[in-house]
Amino acid sequence: MGRWEPDAVGRLRAAAVDLYVEKGFDQATVTDIAERAGVTPRTFFRYFADKREVLFSGSVDLQKAVVTALEEAPETATPYEAVWAALEAASTMIGQNHDWSRMRNEIIMANAELQERELIKLAALAAAMAEGLRVRGVKEPDASLTAEVGIAVFRVAFGRWVAGPANRKLTRTMRQCFDRARALI
Amino acid sequence: MGRWEPDAVGRLRAAAVDLYVEKGFDQATVTDIAERAGVTPRTFFRYFADKREVLFSGSVDLQKAVVTALEEAPETATPYEAVWAALEAASTMIGQNHDWSRMRNEIIMANAELQERELIKLAALAAAMAEGLRVRGVKEPDASLTAEVGIAVFRVAFGRWVAGPANRKLTRTMRQCFDRARALI
Repeated sequence: MGRWEPDAVGRLRAAAVDLYVEKGFDQATVTDIAERAGVTPRTFFRYFADKREVLFSGSVDLQKAVVTALEEAPETATPYEAVWAALEAASTMIGQNHDWSRMRNEIIMANAELQERELIKLAALAAAMAEGLRVRGVKEPDASLTAEVGIAVFRVAFGRWVAGPANRKLTRTMRQCFDRARALI
Repeated sequence: MGRWEPDAVGRLRAAAVDLYVEKGFDQATVTDIAERAGVTPRTFFRYFADKREVLFSGSVDLQKAVVTALEEAPETATPYEAVWAALEAASTMIGQNHDWSRMRNEIIMANAELQERELIKLAALAAAMAEGLRVRGVKEPDASLTAEVGIAVFRVAFGRWVAGPANRKLTRTMRQCFDRARALI
């Protein structure tokens, strides 16, 4: 195995979700994943701390994108408009690869421990959004309410988008879900 | 220690939260708790599987109350009105003991593992509410949206109520938070 491994991360990610779906998350080993990606287990560990990390390593970038979008939203934006901008940034990142999202979601839904981790990541995202709104001068409970309700709607939208056809836009599903939520409450 | 132990559960609960606050959740032992409650460790294990259960044993009754309220809401109730009835039932249960809720919340917020468990219980509650709405004939995404947004607002309301004075009503805080959420999104 040469030291130069073009897109080893991408191949490891793809190999991992394939194997988690085929064998189940618990059964798939790092050796399996590395072999399918055509790299050594050592290469796997250069990029990911463990098997779980393959599924969650994107969450740091996601949180950064959300916080940046909140910072960059126009001063005149309402709390909702700022949260929309943040979730739109998140959707643009996530929405790029429907296939990966669908498989990742399937793997997580089949494993209680992974579901817990996903819940924690989403709670952290909501907390980061609430903090971003407070930095913008939004008072409580408005900051927490907009952030928490935003993440709740985002979760439902994501679930629908991931179960639907690949050519549908996540931002569009999200917009529809916000419109429905507004009508419902 | 006689076999007849009036309100051993109540005393164990009170002793446990006292000790979790005093010593920290990880440091307090079942022996400590039993001793303070004036019972044997064996009595503790008759009521609770472990130390964590003391904090979460109420969640079964809570979920039951929520599901029953959804079933019993008038046929003409909108999804929101049904969810409101369910959360009102939950608030009535939780709202009875501000002191216990405040201490329980403090203990959970100080411990990552307990926070995870709380998130899982709330996610399960939202899922149960969405299912209860579907049973009532509410279609998707409306069922999930009303349930998830309802739990999001409930979480924020609970956080405010628990941090506020003991004589404030949880249902009132919840009503105010729903009014704000409606105005915000």
